[in-house]
Amino acid sequence: MYEGSPPNTAQRLQLLVEHLSPPSSSSTSERRTLSPSETLIVRTNSEIKWNGHGYRDTYFEFDDKGTASLTGFRYSKYSSKEFHDLRPWLEQTLRINLKTTLPSQPTMPSIHSPVVNHEFYDMIKPYGIQISFSEQDRLCHGHGRSTSDIYRLRYSNIARLPDAVIWPESHEQVETIVCASQNCNVGLIPYGGGSNDVNALECPVEEDRRMIVVLDMRQMNRILGLSKENMFVTVEAGAVAKDLEKELRKDGFTLGWGAESVEFSTLGSLTARRSSGIEKKFYDFTKSIIEIQMVTPAGTVQHASTTPPPPTTVGPSLLHIFLGSEGTLGVITSLTLKIYRLIPHRRVVSLYFPTFQTGLLFLREITQRNVVKLVGARMVDEVGLDLVQAFNTQAPNLTSIFKDVIKRYYWKKVKNLVRGKMCLAAIILESEDVGKLQVYEQRVIGVAEKFGGVDGGWEIGDHVFSISQTLPYLRDFLMDYYVISDSLDTTISWSHVQELSENVKNTIKATCRAQSAKASPWVAVRVDTVYDTGVSLTFMYGFNFWNLSDPHGALLRVEQAAMVEILKLRGSVSHHTTGIGKRKKEMFIESSSETSLAVLKSVKKTLDPSNVFCVQNLI
Amino acid sequence: MYEGSPPNTAQRLQLLVEHLSPPSSSSTSERRTLSPSETLIVRTNSEIKWNGHGYRDTYFEFDDKGTASLTGFRYSKYSSKEFHDLRPWLEQTLRINLKTTLPSQPTMPSIHSPVVNHEFYDMIKPYGIQISFSEQDRLCHGHGRSTSDIYRLRYSNIARLPDAVIWPESHEQVETIVCASQNCNVGLIPYGGGSNDVNALECPVEEDRRMIVVLDMRQMNRILGLSKENMFVTVEAGAVAKDLEKELRKDGFTLGWGAESVEFSTLGSLTARRSSGIEKKFYDFTKSIIEIQMVTPAGTVQHASTTPPPPTTVGPSLLHIFLGSEGTLGVITSLTLKIYRLIPHRRVVSLYFPTFQTGLLFLREITQRNVVKLVGARMVDEVGLDLVQAFNTQAPNLTSIFKDVIKRYYWKKVKNLVRGKMCLAAIILESEDVGKLQVYEQRVIGVAEKFGGVDGGWEIGDHVFSISQTLPYLRDFLMDYYVISDSLDTTISWSHVQELSENVKNTIKATCRAQSAKASPWVAVRVDTVYDTGVSLTFMYGFNFWNLSDPHGALLRVEQAAMVEILKLRGSVSHHTTGIGKRKKEMFIESSSETSLAVLKSVKKTLDPSNVFCVQNLI
Repeated sequence: MYEGSPPNTAQRLQLLVEHLSPPSSSSTSERRTLSPSETLIVRTNSEIKWNGHGYRDTYFEFDDKGTASLTGFRYSKYSSKEFHDLRPWLEQTLRINLKTTLPSQPTMPSIHSPVVNHEFYDMIKPYGIQISFSEQDRLCHGHGRSTSDIYRLRYSNIARLPDAVIWPESHEQVETIVCASQNCNVGLIPYGGGSNDVNALECPVEEDRRMIVVLDMRQMNRILGLSKENMFVTVEAGAVAKDLEKELRKDGFTLGWGAESVEFSTLGSLTARRSSGIEKKFYDFTKSIIEIQMVTPAGTVQHASTTPPPPTTVGPSLLHIFLGSEGTLGVITSLTLKIYRLIPHRRVVSLYFPTFQTGLLFLREITQRNVVKLVGARMVDEVGLDLVQAFNTQAPNLTSIFKDVIKRYYWKKVKNLVRGKMCLAAIILESEDVGKLQVYEQRVIGVAEKFGGVDGGWEIGDHVFSISQTLPYLRDFLMDYYVISDSLDTTISWSHVQELSENVKNTIKATCRAQSAKASPWVAVRVDTVYDTGVSLTFMYGFNFWNLSDPHGALLRVEQAAMVEILKLRGSVSHHTTGIGKRKKEMFIESSSETSLAVLKSVKKTLDPSNVFCVQNLI
Repeated sequence: MYEGSPPNTAQRLQLLVEHLSPPSSSSTSERRTLSPSETLIVRTNSEIKWNGHGYRDTYFEFDDKGTASLTGFRYSKYSSKEFHDLRPWLEQTLRINLKTTLPSQPTMPSIHSPVVNHEFYDMIKPYGIQISFSEQDRLCHGHGRSTSDIYRLRYSNIARLPDAVIWPESHEQVETIVCASQNCNVGLIPYGGGSNDVNALECPVEEDRRMIVVLDMRQMNRILGLSKENMFVTVEAGAVAKDLEKELRKDGFTLGWGAESVEFSTLGSLTARRSSGIEKKFYDFTKSIIEIQMVTPAGTVQHASTTPPPPTTVGPSLLHIFLGSEGTLGVITSLTLKIYRLIPHRRVVSLYFPTFQTGLLFLREITQRNVVKLVGARMVDEVGLDLVQAFNTQAPNLTSIFKDVIKRYYWKKVKNLVRGKMCLAAIILESEDVGKLQVYEQRVIGVAEKFGGVDGGWEIGDHVFSISQTLPYLRDFLMDYYVISDSLDTTISWSHVQELSENVKNTIKATCRAQSAKASPWVAVRVDTVYDTGVSLTFMYGFNFWNLSDPHGALLRVEQAAMVEILKLRGSVSHHTTGIGKRKKEMFIESSSETSLAVLKSVKKTLDPSNVFCVQNLI
């Protein structure tokens, strides 16, 4: 990514200005991923909760009869739908009681007044850079969406919030801000959509009393170049993934991947935490990145080519050090990404298997044998399947109950599928040709039958993928009923999936019981991505904390025990999707060699000698 | 790659010893890519030329009638075959004269006596490490296969050779050697097969008078682990690519890629120079690397897992700094690579197009539209096509001449294909099912016809791929007849391929003429790899230097002018295959930003503070 460009930074910037950006006078012809009014909504956080995940208008509730539903209109499959099986399932599994609730505090009890560095303020003010010191802005930008963050917002406190929020509008403004920060000894934290699960935004408390400023990048959402001939897009890094996807689809292209957080995450933040998405086997976001432009205190790292060559590199590549740097080295201001042609037809195939183990054998077979072009594959175990089924939106009636009885009888007697043991795999297929989808589907079902699999229709499998976006809302809702829940992800080779799954689930259960939680904990495992060499797993777990004095502490002890078990069996610290943050920092350090940590430290020291980027994840 | 491993180096090594290597007592059960006697052949260089590319028994020659042939038995398609069209083509194009020859000098005129660091020798001797100070070993290990290197060996001199050659036999021996080198101020140069084209092995002359030792890694060729279930292989880095491929095929697997240099390059050297191979769209060697173990003066960077997780990373990845480090940071001692199932059926489709431009449109269409699974795609321009056709192994007879006349008449009149303008594309298809190959072939031909393409049968296309391995032999042979030739590679986006091709070819021709070369220079361009976003190109060029006093200088001036032109049009410094070395070092530096060079320097300083790895490519 560093070849083929002109020799110095000044020339590069000039080229960038000339070729990539439209002239500043004709700002009306700019193509952006958001309109000015939409950008303003983002700017003011008017649609987003301060103490929970996602949109203000979207939350779970029970009606007078105790039926659960999701409010709002954001999620077509679920919003304004009733889930008749959800309350009974929650009562049985997590022992919730509709009358025993724990509402969130109306606001956080103590919000410290901001540290203000006047010299810094004076340096950036002449450039017309937007800055806010308001409590609301600082509160909205001082956390991610991890259970820890949300729990503390609702019932406790966050020890330190950022002192100010800045909304830069151009690469040049970012350069000005970084330069001023270095000169005035101000700490910076780049901010995408606040969607991280790993406490990445925690401000240093004791050790760093400088002014700390959050850079909300979402005003920078210009599409700087889109080449259909060369199949790439160059975009400012503050564009939110789902908004860019919407723009690309107008031209028949796609970014080709979907992470749960696409609706809130900027491309810069996804890059900085090396996120990928569920459709990994064919579309890997990290492999789509052709070039990045990043502002560091030591200067801008970039390749300002209007026609970047294919994503090839000679010599050592720094790209993969910037990917996953999680805001510790600099701010990504623009990205050039490979785009894909939109393939028009998709189908989800659902398959029930007698056991998790047989389901794994099936997944390995279709992955390694390239039976079909596998766009996405997930599998939930028997416990995860219960959760998926609790999202059933159809009210029970005599016909459906009768059908269900017949189906269960047939499955049990003929197919050896027993409720409480079986698991569900869901496969996404795609094709230019709708007729071929039928062929692919039959091929998948054929392989499944070898492992005792039974076709479950498309609908339930579709839920396996789509409920993910609603689960953080459910997590927040359940806190009202004394249930705390969380998830952990890892990758592991095929030969060790079963053992790791069992051991980690058992560890989580045992640790929960040791905290004497009221109810037996709920633990499920889900296969999220398949590779030829192994899979990524997400463990989802929760427990009732009605009788616990320190639920947050209990959650952390469960998490710690699970992480130790994962490392013991040589699972990875995380899958691509979530990153490290402060939540997994210790685990990352423990699993890295001293030599590689020394290299990371030397890179940090070279690019950011005075620790302007103070988030202290990783390095 | 750095997660999930135990906390310290000692434990890691212990694990590696216990799990990956067989117990040292049972060395007979070791699986290696070469038998002990084959390893000895490599050790003694008894099959390899000292002053040219490749095997001693393989060279071009003219018989009494002036018919060219290739001796030996190494290349089934070409060895011991006669090329009836080759001499006429060489006489016409490069003005060679069978009677005007310039034979190589019998040995290099001055081979300096070695610098010997006795302290170093005393430190490694107790470990039974093999070391040689012989002129022959030093000569064989002091160069690659670039035209510059070979020209200097044949007619001139190499200013400095390494002082000794060492053949380490284990990771632990490499650690001992690196440690001793650092303590005794000795320079090290890691050596794979000596197949680099970029003068990577040149020893520092004036600036560094330390003892310089070459580490020939090829004794380290153990297969440490092969998991069919998880589809990976762990192998010592001194295994030569073609030998490992042979072993994998016994189990129905493949590395899945083929570079021209697989027959001579070790996996460690291919990794260190970020090589990839021609079959890039689906098999990319650099993406196959799951883990590497590398010995640096600061310690060993490794992940010694017996069951590595899928190739995912969280946090910044150093892997891509080690890939492409070209021996400047340390020695790679073992690698874990993803392997692929061997797909049994292959077919090559050849297609003639009226112009290079129409051929490019065809290539872009089949690449971006995913018309078929495209394993490899190449295209030669009209000049390159002449060269391919000169490798015809059939003696002319009346039937073939008649067929040829008919074909040409038909093509010219009906298809608008004119000799001297048309180009040739060759596509490799593969499938589990031989029947499908037919379908894929028809689909490719269907797309080609839209662009005026004509099916040329499989044979000529097969030549396009397979003659590559013989071209370095031809290059050496032509030096005997006063012809010097070379090649340069780059990558460029689709929108600029045509312009870059034309401009670079014109620049090469003009610069040759400016040196007043006897004959009009020969310049061809070949598309080597296709990506959705662009292609990689190789420019091949040569000229007659009969009347030049400094042919090597003339060659360098041509190369310099071509490189400037490539950079001007934003082509990349190189494609993956060749690396940077000393040949492209200046170009690499010029095209890198100051900030990224500073980072590379800090990494070098951290891992190798006293410059043990003294090759001075890149950093």
